[in-house]
Amino acid sequence: MKVGVLGGGGYTGMEVLGLLARHPRIRVAFASSRSLAGTPSPVPGLPYTPPSLEACGEVDAIFLCLPHGVAAHWVTDLREAFGDATPRLIDLTADHRPGSGNEQDAVYGMAELASHRMPEARLVANPGCYPTGVILSLLPLAEAGMIDPTRPLSIHASSGVTGAGRTPRQDLLFAEVADNYRAYGWGNRHRHLKEMRALLPGLPLIFQPHLLPLPRGILETLTVPVHPGTTAGGIRECWRGRYPENSSAVRVLPEGLPELRQVLRTDLLILGAEEVEGIDPPVVTVGAALDNLGKGAAGQAVQNMNAMMGWELNEGIRWQH
Amino acid sequence: MKVGVLGGGGYTGMEVLGLLARHPRIRVAFASSRSLAGTPSPVPGLPYTPPSLEACGEVDAIFLCLPHGVAAHWVTDLREAFGDATPRLIDLTADHRPGSGNEQDAVYGMAELASHRMPEARLVANPGCYPTGVILSLLPLAEAGMIDPTRPLSIHASSGVTGAGRTPRQDLLFAEVADNYRAYGWGNRHRHLKEMRALLPGLPLIFQPHLLPLPRGILETLTVPVHPGTTAGGIRECWRGRYPENSSAVRVLPEGLPELRQVLRTDLLILGAEEVEGIDPPVVTVGAALDNLGKGAAGQAVQNMNAMMGWELNEGIRWQH
Amino acid sequence: MKVGVLGGGGYTGMEVLGLLARHPRIRVAFASSRSLAGTPSPVPGLPYTPPSLEACGEVDAIFLCLPHGVAAHWVTDLREAFGDATPRLIDLTADHRPGSGNEQDAVYGMAELASHRMPEARLVANPGCYPTGVILSLLPLAEAGMIDPTRPLSIHASSGVTGAGRTPRQDLLFAEVADNYRAYGWGNRHRHLKEMRALLPGLPLIFQPHLLPLPRGILETLTVPVHPGTTAGGIRECWRGRYPENSSAVRVLPEGLPELRQVLRTDLLILGAEEVEGIDPPVVTVGAALDNLGKGAAGQAVQNMNAMMGWELNEGIRWQH
Amino acid sequence: MKVGVLGGGGYTGMEVLGLLARHPRIRVAFASSRSLAGTPSPVPGLPYTPPSLEACGEVDAIFLCLPHGVAAHWVTDLREAFGDATPRLIDLTADHRPGSGNEQDAVYGMAELASHRMPEARLVANPGCYPTGVILSLLPLAEAGMIDPTRPLSIHASSGVTGAGRTPRQDLLFAEVADNYRAYGWGNRHRHLKEMRALLPGLPLIFQPHLLPLPRGILETLTVPVHPGTTAGGIRECWRGRYPENSSAVRVLPEGLPELRQVLRTDLLILGAEEVEGIDPPVVTVGAALDNLGKGAAGQAVQNMNAMMGWELNEGIRWQH
Repeated sequence: MKVGVLGGGGYTGMEVLGLLARHPRIRVAFASSRSLAGTPSPVPGLPYTPPSLEACGEVDAIFLCLPHGVAAHWVTDLREAFGDATPRLIDLTADHRPGSGNEQDAVYGMAELASHRMPEARLVANPGCYPTGVILSLLPLAEAGMIDPTRPLSIHASSGVTGAGRTPRQDLLFAEVADNYRAYGWGNRHRHLKEMRALLPGLPLIFQPHLLPLPRGILETLTVPVHPGTTAGGIRECWRGRYPENSSAVRVLPEGLPELRQVLRTDLLILGAEEVEGIDPPVVTVGAALDNLGKGAAGQAVQNMNAMMGWELNEGIRWQH
Repeated sequence: MKVGVLGGGGYTGMEVLGLLARHPRIRVAFASSRSLAGTPSPVPGLPYTPPSLEACGEVDAIFLCLPHGVAAHWVTDLREAFGDATPRLIDLTADHRPGSGNEQDAVYGMAELASHRMPEARLVANPGCYPTGVILSLLPLAEAGMIDPTRPLSIHASSGVTGAGRTPRQDLLFAEVADNYRAYGWGNRHRHLKEMRALLPGLPLIFQPHLLPLPRGILETLTVPVHPGTTAGGIRECWRGRYPENSSAVRVLPEGLPELRQVLRTDLLILGAEEVEGIDPPVVTVGAALDNLGKGAAGQAVQNMNAMMGWELNEGIRWQH
Repeated sequence: MKVGVLGGGGYTGMEVLGLLARHPRIRVAFASSRSLAGTPSPVPGLPYTPPSLEACGEVDAIFLCLPHGVAAHWVTDLREAFGDATPRLIDLTADHRPGSGNEQDAVYGMAELASHRMPEARLVANPGCYPTGVILSLLPLAEAGMIDPTRPLSIHASSGVTGAGRTPRQDLLFAEVADNYRAYGWGNRHRHLKEMRALLPGLPLIFQPHLLPLPRGILETLTVPVHPGTTAGGIRECWRGRYPENSSAVRVLPEGLPELRQVLRTDLLILGAEEVEGIDPPVVTVGAALDNLGKGAAGQAVQNMNAMMGWELNEGIRWQH
Repeated sequence: MKVGVLGGGGYTGMEVLGLLARHPRIRVAFASSRSLAGTPSPVPGLPYTPPSLEACGEVDAIFLCLPHGVAAHWVTDLREAFGDATPRLIDLTADHRPGSGNEQDAVYGMAELASHRMPEARLVANPGCYPTGVILSLLPLAEAGMIDPTRPLSIHASSGVTGAGRTPRQDLLFAEVADNYRAYGWGNRHRHLKEMRALLPGLPLIFQPHLLPLPRGILETLTVPVHPGTTAGGIRECWRGRYPENSSAVRVLPEGLPELRQVLRTDLLILGAEEVEGIDPPVVTVGAALDNLGKGAAGQAVQNMNAMMGWELNEGIRWQH
């Protein structure tokens, strides 16, 4: 199948291109980047080209890795230009996610939960990196009635720097990030919270992101108030029921919490749960590890493409770094 | 005044020696280290020597920077050897902290809260690095009746690697730590929790430490359930009343949460508070940043020595890196 | 083909196992590690086992990733036990390299230069990480008569920390390495120099290694005195003639010098050459980048196995990270 | 004495301000920064202000930490405005260094070599970071006739990222630098080479800089062809004669080569020398370590100010981190 990537020169775009280049069913027809046009892309033999509506008309699917806000305009233009013949679209920006105001227009692509809706989808909103770990860990527990919604649920998240994009900014310079670790987006004001709330209504989520001195990777540690009788073992079992090893990119640890390096440069999400001593009513610590560019972006986008095409969900994604 | 340092070759001991070397009222008489004996210590002109009970008898105060468990034996031996003439002792290990079983024998040295007890103290238990940030931030709020003890209080802490000591271990090798970020001591099983609970009775503390890919520094992000009407502004005011700039090493941010690099290689603790939107009953996010080797160890130990001697609390500590 | 790995728990052994696990013609029969026996190896479904002479008898080839000095004993024991039926052996230690004293017993496996000798080889000495970049860059130039042997040839090399192994040592702890960069093995006393000199006789090599604050990767910058008329372009052409893209893991940059990150987690060696202004007789700067665990160890070992078996040299090695 | 800093918001400017804030004879009257005006500077109580010619007229000395090219314009404007009453100027840019074309207008401030010329100097060109290590190590040896100028002298240098400034650039983003190590400015085309050649005429210098994944620090490893009979011991003695411990910021190691972390956040330059085995005629490896922001910029600038005022050369500089 022929696909194209709009905005292929940022960290997300480069990761998508790297995955597609090795995908057995895909030929990448174009990788657009205004600033890098003429230089080599991660796809061997394919230089970047300026974005072109014409080129978009000649592929079967397009990955939109553009800046937030720009993708929505491209979707409009593409539909005007090609109507029903518009290629399948996978939008990796926030422009069509829950809480964006455009969500009615797209299918939300949390891959393990929505793959059955993909064959019909014309436009997929690829989930945010932070919500991927939060929603995939909490939603099964919420649906199983394990979570106590009367006590606060604290989500402490830390991300590598590529999550903030590749556009030069002083606060992202090496010398600013290298010896630092800091909170940001405090007070429940991070954009991704809307997405979490839409999928997890009724839970008093407190989401506090932090910036790690690392290029990539997300580790989320959740303090989850649970109903009496809910054990770490029960939580693991719930997850395992939902995420079979063959048909998902989610792994459940038999004990302990995951580490960042277990997922770096993979498309996996690893979950762990541990009971907390001495707290009554009880609380469980949940850990989620994923690569913000892998399962948090490019990996999930490829899963969504696979599901749209009716292929195996995990074709072409990375299990090991 | 003449002082000695037992166990001066670890990260904590080296930091204590560095501070003492620049302290205007101090002459360091010895720096002991079995493995480094004969090599230069951080005190100019003073090589390390093997530990010696005799040398201990010739100083006015001793800093114990030994492995946990070893310090208690030294305290016993010193008291047997010197009786009432035992030098003033500042124990930087966990051996005499609350929860150790030996706490009745020592004065707990949370400097800003206990300096009035220091002039009489013969043995000071220097607080743990994590509890320093947690107790100094929460205790004033608890005493002011701001904290709601019926909902869980989640403490998410991250530390640089020096907190784990300088003894070679495979999991502390550069190549194991460098690309990683991970939780440890889950389930409320970290040793420091006892110390926190002793000082903050009745609060349902959930303490989850993590290991950062950094040599030093601690950042703690606390999700604090508060009684209605408690604002971030009120919390800052409460702290400022307790920690005057002239007579403490605690700083309160006018807004936002602190960053790790603001405290690296200093003896400061920086606190910040921010309200959390959309949670009812309310919750406040509290941030605490300190250097585990500074305010979390050597800096506070020097404050305690100052207070024992009746000197200004902050003489010789570092305000800026 | 069935293969085994002795010493599979160090950094080199783990890298070999990771490569073999994905090699299309290989089944890994055992991965030995005394200290990790019973825990999972990088090969899915294959736990580490204690080393066993018996298990060695049931495979076609064995990779020796043991400590230096231990491999030679294993080779002796294996030959005693199995005689002519001893599996093909690929020794990743220094025990059979040029300068070791045992070199007559093995074929030196600089893959691109010696693959024709591999089909007959029973024991291959896999080259050292530093010599791989030095010899593959200089040998073609020396044979082409480009290098002036009357002036010193300075090799400045920097390596990530995994090159020093996984056995705990204080100087390899994160907090010792993280903010540092340092020379070691000065005065032409590094073990690898013998290997370079054996392959590059008559050249006045000055080899100065350094330790980078990175887990992996080697960058070598060589100041090469050349005969008048030798240009950077001529050097690149010489390399390209020797290392065709299809049948080697060596890449030649059209201009400039290579960067470490271009080779991280790959099995490539990238070479570059640039002329130096204002020096007469002339000098050329040569840059070589490789991953010490990739082309510098596991990647080349797999190339050697491929060549021993008559397979394509580069089957199963990594082109891109 | 009252001083001002123009361009105080870059890495060099901030370092100068930090040093001046602790200098016992100095009061900082202004710290200018267009982009940071109104925010706190490293001098307690002194916010940044926009640059102002008027403010310049009210101080005794000014440090120019502006972008290269901008400082020369300020010098012209200041002299036009204030004539003979122009404050003493210390230019930390390249604008008045040897090779700039404006060198006749300034005294070159290699502190240990030129302090006797400072009392008369109205404008000092503070040396570049790389040349500081190269010139201070080689010049005494050249003057002592130890260096053989007929063979190439290779200077391999590596610097932390702050050397490239604080203006946002994609290649300086954390995610671009963090896992990398690379050469740049190859072919003897780095700007600093002019400065080295001007001070070390007749030596065939080959200068190859590299970028380290570290915020700060410079390590230089020099391959120095020497005349027969020149030993490492003789080189150390030559340096010690030139750089007495009391009156210089240069330290000479009794053996071995220096490490980067020995100089981080100090104003020291540490030198080491080691003989190279098996090379004839002989070669010596010289190592130089300094902090690019310390002795390589701010520290030397403060030394120059001290010398201009007739104060002790090393007043207010940092010996230990």
